[in-house]
Amino acid sequence: MTDLLSTLRDELAQIVDLGVAARVLEWDQLVMMPRGGATTRAEGLATVHRLAHELFVRDEIGELLDRLEPEVADLDPDSDDACLVAVTRRDWDKARRVPPALQGEMTKLGSEAMEAWAEARANDDYASFRPWLDRTLELKQRYIDCFPATDDAYDVLLDDFEPGMQTHEVRRVFERLEPALRELTAAAADEEPEPFLSGPYPREAQHELSLEVARAFGAADEYFRLDPTVHPFCLSFATRDIRLTTRYAEDDLHGNSLFSTMHEVGHGLYEHGGDAALDRTPLATGCSSALHESQSRLWENVIGRSLPFWRWFYPRFRDAFANALADVPLERFHRAVNRPRPSFIRVDADETTYGLHIILRFQLEQELLFGGLSTADVPEAWNTRMEELVGVRPPNDRVGCLQDVHWSGGMFGYFPTYQLGNVLSAQIWERLVSDLPDAYERVEQGSFGEIYEWLREHLYRHGRKFTPAAMTERLVGGPIDPEPYLRYLADKNASLAAA
Amino acid sequence: MTDLLSTLRDELAQIVDLGVAARVLEWDQLVMMPRGGATTRAEGLATVHRLAHELFVRDEIGELLDRLEPEVADLDPDSDDACLVAVTRRDWDKARRVPPALQGEMTKLGSEAMEAWAEARANDDYASFRPWLDRTLELKQRYIDCFPATDDAYDVLLDDFEPGMQTHEVRRVFERLEPALRELTAAAADEEPEPFLSGPYPREAQHELSLEVARAFGAADEYFRLDPTVHPFCLSFATRDIRLTTRYAEDDLHGNSLFSTMHEVGHGLYEHGGDAALDRTPLATGCSSALHESQSRLWENVIGRSLPFWRWFYPRFRDAFANALADVPLERFHRAVNRPRPSFIRVDADETTYGLHIILRFQLEQELLFGGLSTADVPEAWNTRMEELVGVRPPNDRVGCLQDVHWSGGMFGYFPTYQLGNVLSAQIWERLVSDLPDAYERVEQGSFGEIYEWLREHLYRHGRKFTPAAMTERLVGGPIDPEPYLRYLADKNASLAAA
Repeated sequence: MTDLLSTLRDELAQIVDLGVAARVLEWDQLVMMPRGGATTRAEGLATVHRLAHELFVRDEIGELLDRLEPEVADLDPDSDDACLVAVTRRDWDKARRVPPALQGEMTKLGSEAMEAWAEARANDDYASFRPWLDRTLELKQRYIDCFPATDDAYDVLLDDFEPGMQTHEVRRVFERLEPALRELTAAAADEEPEPFLSGPYPREAQHELSLEVARAFGAADEYFRLDPTVHPFCLSFATRDIRLTTRYAEDDLHGNSLFSTMHEVGHGLYEHGGDAALDRTPLATGCSSALHESQSRLWENVIGRSLPFWRWFYPRFRDAFANALADVPLERFHRAVNRPRPSFIRVDADETTYGLHIILRFQLEQELLFGGLSTADVPEAWNTRMEELVGVRPPNDRVGCLQDVHWSGGMFGYFPTYQLGNVLSAQIWERLVSDLPDAYERVEQGSFGEIYEWLREHLYRHGRKFTPAAMTERLVGGPIDPEPYLRYLADKNASLAAA
Repeated sequence: MTDLLSTLRDELAQIVDLGVAARVLEWDQLVMMPRGGATTRAEGLATVHRLAHELFVRDEIGELLDRLEPEVADLDPDSDDACLVAVTRRDWDKARRVPPALQGEMTKLGSEAMEAWAEARANDDYASFRPWLDRTLELKQRYIDCFPATDDAYDVLLDDFEPGMQTHEVRRVFERLEPALRELTAAAADEEPEPFLSGPYPREAQHELSLEVARAFGAADEYFRLDPTVHPFCLSFATRDIRLTTRYAEDDLHGNSLFSTMHEVGHGLYEHGGDAALDRTPLATGCSSALHESQSRLWENVIGRSLPFWRWFYPRFRDAFANALADVPLERFHRAVNRPRPSFIRVDADETTYGLHIILRFQLEQELLFGGLSTADVPEAWNTRMEELVGVRPPNDRVGCLQDVHWSGGMFGYFPTYQLGNVLSAQIWERLVSDLPDAYERVEQGSFGEIYEWLREHLYRHGRKFTPAAMTERLVGGPIDPEPYLRYLADKNASLAAA
């Protein structure tokens, strides 16, 4: 490595170290911290984020990147070093465009608006949240104005989560999905919920089974830990230090820890599979939000809600929860954890209706930002759209437009990546099965090592080296495509109907 | 507050925030982290420490302090702001004297030597550790050379833990203690260990009783947590976020979690009792190592091994460990957890022999640094001295000169503060009892609130505002004095003999 490259790596390593420190502070806050620590922790976190940002946007980093241009021109463009320079250049240009004062305002507003949202949701009081939403939208417009004009102003927001992706690409995918998902949803029989859905599912057994499956998927104790939290998430501090979190509903099978654990394990395996040579560089994480979500969904749904998976795991699961499941045959159980069930809450939605929840948010956030929808009209617009898309009308805003934290935190542009992740998960699985035709037979044997290795080789090890479009092209041989996902859903729904 | 003061506070707050981030990383590493995270964590920690140091030693901080001098001259010297400027000036002057290169070398050697020590101890192989000790001593000499010459070069090292204290003051205290402790130790009957010492003490019950006592002492769940670890410690992230750790020996009463928990609660209450106005300043922690240890020892020993405490708590303790204690009367139990037992290991030592372990280390580290003792002769010197002081000769170096981590981490000057803490604990307790004559009656009722409040009012709330000498003067009306401790030990030993 040349001196310039090694200087760049040292500069970036300390910034990455601060980012990891911030994530440890966040994980600790959500999983371990006594309540009393909240105020001090918020201030401490703000400091660490600010210092990392200040270190990154220095002129020296830009000068280093300039001086590295000729060196990099001689390198293989797929080499770690060439990718490091390219990605850092892109990140640095973006970070420099946002004035520190605006960045500070957004951070401060984000944390205050999130508190206001939590209070508003608890009291089903949208009116109290509305001024915060107005202010957030105003700052988002100022944020957008920091960047060169694009065909669609939403591109700027999307770019924070899917670098380089354009809004029309999302729209193309969603326009193909919407009628198909609505049709599958409408065709779903309106039936009484299965009595075994309500448990009992004792917490201790959930925890043990979740750990068992996490380990089987590849989350070894030496590199992973699993802790309870309120809203499950995964944070990575290094390829060899991954924190998974989960929750335990004892009276609702859909909230069983096993499903959220499989989801977070998917995120965790992506991080764990990164090439160790990328450690302590900005490339040491997943490529984009959608590609990350493709992995949580692949392990949770494509594998974890499949009939082969449950052929392997149902005997153990039924034994552990015999009070609920002793008389429930495999097929009936499998149907219950898969069939479309129109409902109000996105995070509880089945695979078929989930996309409709996302399409609603994708439409509304564009209308709020650019289409003249007033924040005053959000509840009505939300409820009407829910009725059209999913077929149910929320009885209040708590289970309607106040259900998600994202907008309060300023995360406009994030929602579509959830559904893009679903779409990609089926596309990637089709590609994987063409290389490993017996993949589902392996799942049925509880053997996941070769599936993990395929994903590591084709996706995980590259970290954030490539753009999402380039990564997708390498991985599945083309751009994002909704057809495999629609085939996957049609097959699944057909198999459920036959059950 | 003036602009200059508020600038200083902002500058220091971000440095304190980085210090807290480092402590969270350390706590996580010792209590939560999967093993795989070790290498990355070490690098991340080094970065956070280095950045905090770099931010602190900037010229700007010195200039701010200079410009604040005239302002501070008009303030009450005991005010928070005056103390903040005085303490920061002192810290800054010290930090600036150590060249970054030497600081980096010491940090690096410290972590490498600690690994070498762990390996050497595991294999009882002092020879393999000796070169690391030589190198550590060499760097310590270079460190001492960074500071103005003092009457006793050891003063420089002591100053890192007891700012302003001089070696001759320690020597005066230890010279008074040594013959008295040797006499008490020699008088201790050589008797068979009580059979109930070896348990069984089931872990779960230890944990519950430890939590119960921690809460009774004042460690509320809203501000504290208690987790298992290998070597118990306490870290504070804020006055309202204190982390206690403990361990659970099931077959050794002396290793019962309750004792280490009471010890760490003492440290934690000191941190918790700091005035909230000192939060996010360098004053928001204890005054010195000895004053900190005085609090761990006061809660663990002066209260937690007292007869009044066990009159309150023994019924519950005996019930929880009925298999070991059902037939053991209170007085016999109390005697077992207090009587002098000459032994090899400092951390397992009783209150009487403990000081002799410290005196040995205090003597040897001075001889190593300044007295011509070769590292080759450490094992022999250690063992001979142990025989003279404590009356037992270690059969190997694992339970001899390799037992403690401190020297490998470069912590010369630290050991004496443990025993100074013991001395201060008795001195402070005498003063407390003169204000609260029924203190032990309260203990016997399981009522600790007024004891905590007295300590908070007279010690905890001041944080690090005053020098240890000034703080001690305020607290007990004079300098450190071994007599109360000797009275305390004599009383205790007399009461045990009578039991």
